[in-house]
Amino acid sequence: MLGENSYGKSGIRLVKVSRREGRHDVRDVTVGVRFEGNFEAAHRAGDNSNILPTDTMKNTVYALASDHPLEEIESFGLQLAEHFLSSNTAISRVSIELSQRTWDRITVEGVPHPHAFSRGGAETATARVTQGRPGTRIESGLEGLRILKSAQSAFSGFRRDRYTTLQETDDRIFATAVTAWWLYRRPNIPFASLRDSVRRTLLETFARHQSASVQHTAHAMGEAVLARYPEVEEIRLSLPNKHHLPVDLSPFGLKNQNEIFVPTEEPYGLIEATVKRGP
Amino acid sequence: MLGENSYGKSGIRLVKVSRREGRHDVRDVTVGVRFEGNFEAAHRAGDNSNILPTDTMKNTVYALASDHPLEEIESFGLQLAEHFLSSNTAISRVSIELSQRTWDRITVEGVPHPHAFSRGGAETATARVTQGRPGTRIESGLEGLRILKSAQSAFSGFRRDRYTTLQETDDRIFATAVTAWWLYRRPNIPFASLRDSVRRTLLETFARHQSASVQHTAHAMGEAVLARYPEVEEIRLSLPNKHHLPVDLSPFGLKNQNEIFVPTEEPYGLIEATVKRGP
Amino acid sequence: MLGENSYGKSGIRLVKVSRREGRHDVRDVTVGVRFEGNFEAAHRAGDNSNILPTDTMKNTVYALASDHPLEEIESFGLQLAEHFLSSNTAISRVSIELSQRTWDRITVEGVPHPHAFSRGGAETATARVTQGRPGTRIESGLEGLRILKSAQSAFSGFRRDRYTTLQETDDRIFATAVTAWWLYRRPNIPFASLRDSVRRTLLETFARHQSASVQHTAHAMGEAVLARYPEVEEIRLSLPNKHHLPVDLSPFGLKNQNEIFVPTEEPYGLIEATVKRGP
Amino acid sequence: MLGENSYGKSGIRLVKVSRREGRHDVRDVTVGVRFEGNFEAAHRAGDNSNILPTDTMKNTVYALASDHPLEEIESFGLQLAEHFLSSNTAISRVSIELSQRTWDRITVEGVPHPHAFSRGGAETATARVTQGRPGTRIESGLEGLRILKSAQSAFSGFRRDRYTTLQETDDRIFATAVTAWWLYRRPNIPFASLRDSVRRTLLETFARHQSASVQHTAHAMGEAVLARYPEVEEIRLSLPNKHHLPVDLSPFGLKNQNEIFVPTEEPYGLIEATVKRGP
Repeated sequence: MLGENSYGKSGIRLVKVSRREGRHDVRDVTVGVRFEGNFEAAHRAGDNSNILPTDTMKNTVYALASDHPLEEIESFGLQLAEHFLSSNTAISRVSIELSQRTWDRITVEGVPHPHAFSRGGAETATARVTQGRPGTRIESGLEGLRILKSAQSAFSGFRRDRYTTLQETDDRIFATAVTAWWLYRRPNIPFASLRDSVRRTLLETFARHQSASVQHTAHAMGEAVLARYPEVEEIRLSLPNKHHLPVDLSPFGLKNQNEIFVPTEEPYGLIEATVKRGP
Repeated sequence: MLGENSYGKSGIRLVKVSRREGRHDVRDVTVGVRFEGNFEAAHRAGDNSNILPTDTMKNTVYALASDHPLEEIESFGLQLAEHFLSSNTAISRVSIELSQRTWDRITVEGVPHPHAFSRGGAETATARVTQGRPGTRIESGLEGLRILKSAQSAFSGFRRDRYTTLQETDDRIFATAVTAWWLYRRPNIPFASLRDSVRRTLLETFARHQSASVQHTAHAMGEAVLARYPEVEEIRLSLPNKHHLPVDLSPFGLKNQNEIFVPTEEPYGLIEATVKRGP
Repeated sequence: MLGENSYGKSGIRLVKVSRREGRHDVRDVTVGVRFEGNFEAAHRAGDNSNILPTDTMKNTVYALASDHPLEEIESFGLQLAEHFLSSNTAISRVSIELSQRTWDRITVEGVPHPHAFSRGGAETATARVTQGRPGTRIESGLEGLRILKSAQSAFSGFRRDRYTTLQETDDRIFATAVTAWWLYRRPNIPFASLRDSVRRTLLETFARHQSASVQHTAHAMGEAVLARYPEVEEIRLSLPNKHHLPVDLSPFGLKNQNEIFVPTEEPYGLIEATVKRGP
Repeated sequence: MLGENSYGKSGIRLVKVSRREGRHDVRDVTVGVRFEGNFEAAHRAGDNSNILPTDTMKNTVYALASDHPLEEIESFGLQLAEHFLSSNTAISRVSIELSQRTWDRITVEGVPHPHAFSRGGAETATARVTQGRPGTRIESGLEGLRILKSAQSAFSGFRRDRYTTLQETDDRIFATAVTAWWLYRRPNIPFASLRDSVRRTLLETFARHQSASVQHTAHAMGEAVLARYPEVEEIRLSLPNKHHLPVDLSPFGLKNQNEIFVPTEEPYGLIEATVKRGP
């Protein structure tokens, strides 16, 4: 029996240069398209008559990008979802995944240059539009936001067993790479400005929180977003704990005054939480 | 309101050398541990009394590996899951993710060497044990199995729209990197030998299939596994289409007789399907 | 016969938090150490008496970082080089490679926060100090500076042969990821401020140059640095050409007005040039 | 003044399927091309008349691959080098870098399949042909050969200073990822069979060596190759020390009998040596 199945195109890379006299704008977006629906005949019998090629998905992204301003990835995702769903009766759900890299204008003698840019950080803006019969779901997010605080982070009072060697601490480095996804309660949203606000709230809450654990801070970050932005239905946070281990300098006759650390990649704690509105 | 949440430790790297006179064995395993349960107080109030540190999860993996032969990652996963679940009343579900790299014995003058090894391919064996109240779920899998066939692969008869430029073909390169996960119907399984059999069936079916599409072959691979191994309840396959584009040599007065290709990384088609037993 | 040989430690990761009342500073540095010298006995006979362990190199980096402010990676590199060279008579040359990631202060309600930070871009500052008997060589550099210009970039008048299909263009996207290394004429330099100036000159020259090729712009960038900063003896630039290919929209009845591009990773042009002072 | 400079194309990906009745062969090669020569006018004045586009280099690789059997990457590199050097008078030196991935035939019911393949390990075969006026230099190599030995590896008697904490050991894990380059004394060599022999000698020497240090084993490996293969003029080995740290199990009341290790990525020791023929 054929169970859940889907197909699509991932990693569709796209740069659009919008050219106005005296000012170019660059949008750098990666798009993924995924279809679910009635593809039983293709799987069982090799009958491809319901299969729109993934190559066509790619072509469609480029063709529709030609007319779309690409100022908000969410609205481009909506347009793609509507196009595919309305023109393919075999599909029951389409998902569009988008991620955007930023390019900052280079400043020349204090003046932003009209057509020269440098890449922003590793952080990407993300969006996902899922449209089915019935219903549309729009989520925005961000990935790769690396943050660190060097004070007001503790971890103590935790459960101990025979394998527990960790010391309690009231002053540790808290470093993480935030992945966040927030779901909207309705489709008509000023996506770009709300994104800026959510991001700023995440950062400010992180900076000011008196942290008792990663969970504690994750929850506070999610709660602050829900408290301030009624447009947001729920928010999911994934916070890998990028451990910073104090180096033991005592063999060299030195004291490490909580200053010298090794940042490690593996293993890492992984903390995930969803904060949503109560019933 | 706190929604779904979990925490754990990822990327716990472990090498075990089992030393017998005249013969060492090397096991190279990466483990991830994840807890779900009653962690409301930690999130809301910074009360860590139900939180077993992720550092302790790591210690436990090393301590239990000391006694376990590590001949099957599935049984090591089961032991870890049982340990955590039985000793932590706050947790409702524990997931153990395991992946294993292979080390092959170096042959010296035709004889396998007792303690020198070279790394096998990029393919890893994987397993996931999920244990809750109630129920245990054991899955095995593999990742990174790169395969290619240069004949008996077609793609034609597909749906066309105004954005479709793809040509029909009855002879294309079919290349992919298999990720597979299969779920067992019961816990007492000779995991290692069944893994070898499932893997061989996947490879042989891929090699012999007269492919009308990636979907078509994915389905045949899954069906063959279910047909031969009654222990398997369902199998999920993820087959990215690693496109090989024929190079146009005609500007140089040459004919490409379906011989010269550019393998591309992006974009790529992504085909996913689950095959399971009917009701 | 033993030819050129060296040994060392790479990837020594270090974070230093300098704690002052009301203001923390974070330095995130990766260090590599390499020794050349008289290690013939170690290679031939397994005699390690001249071999300072690479583990000790690592310890030394942490111990010396404890006292050093780490405000300039160049001066930390100098201190390390001097330490190793003066205390190990067997070594004829020591090289210290450093790279630094940036952490920006998070702004909370318009005010820079005393101890919360977000990671800067993927660009890293680099330095290399090579100290031998005799002579010291100090180079600074940068890596991963991604830049793009959407106007004033041409490529035409090039050599053609029977395999040449490339069209001439007077308006292409010019995108690259700059790696630069510049060598100082003397050791007493305000490294940090000069780094800022060199980087700004590279960016401004790139933005303003009427480019006839990558080579042409590379040369202009190097020449501008030498013209403005007498402290710099020579500069080496490595500029991979990150191709942006215009998408053909004509099959869809659309015209691509030089707006829609696929950025590609492979293959890429690689252009390298050194600009130095004449004799 | 323009100093050293070069340009070229990197990452030219190529798959060739050689089709015979009942048996296909797959070659998977990545090629890089680099030119040095008289490119002063391009750099200074934007005059491209001596610049063969890197796009043409790519086309040439595909065109020449069409006729070449690709059984030895070295001879394909030689043909490319000769083509470019003979048809471009402005260039003084051309370098061709090649690396090859392996695809193994899938076995179906014990029989190797005619057209289905699985990817070999992460190891790649490499070659570099450098041809100038005058002279040709041919090197072969390999990269990513991961090897490990769990006995007969010691490290003791090393130099100690105040920062040395490392313990002496007569039984440690020795794990590394070999990069090797060997230079031929003449151009007419059975490259493929000699490659197999050199590789086997490296592996066997590693397996059998009573190692006093990485340096010691590197030297023995290089010496064995020179002793057995008079065609080889010199060999360079780069051996990163992939540290395996024993886990301290004593806090859990367990003894680690040299069995349980954490493999670490950073930092790592890096040992490099050239062994060549004496004068």
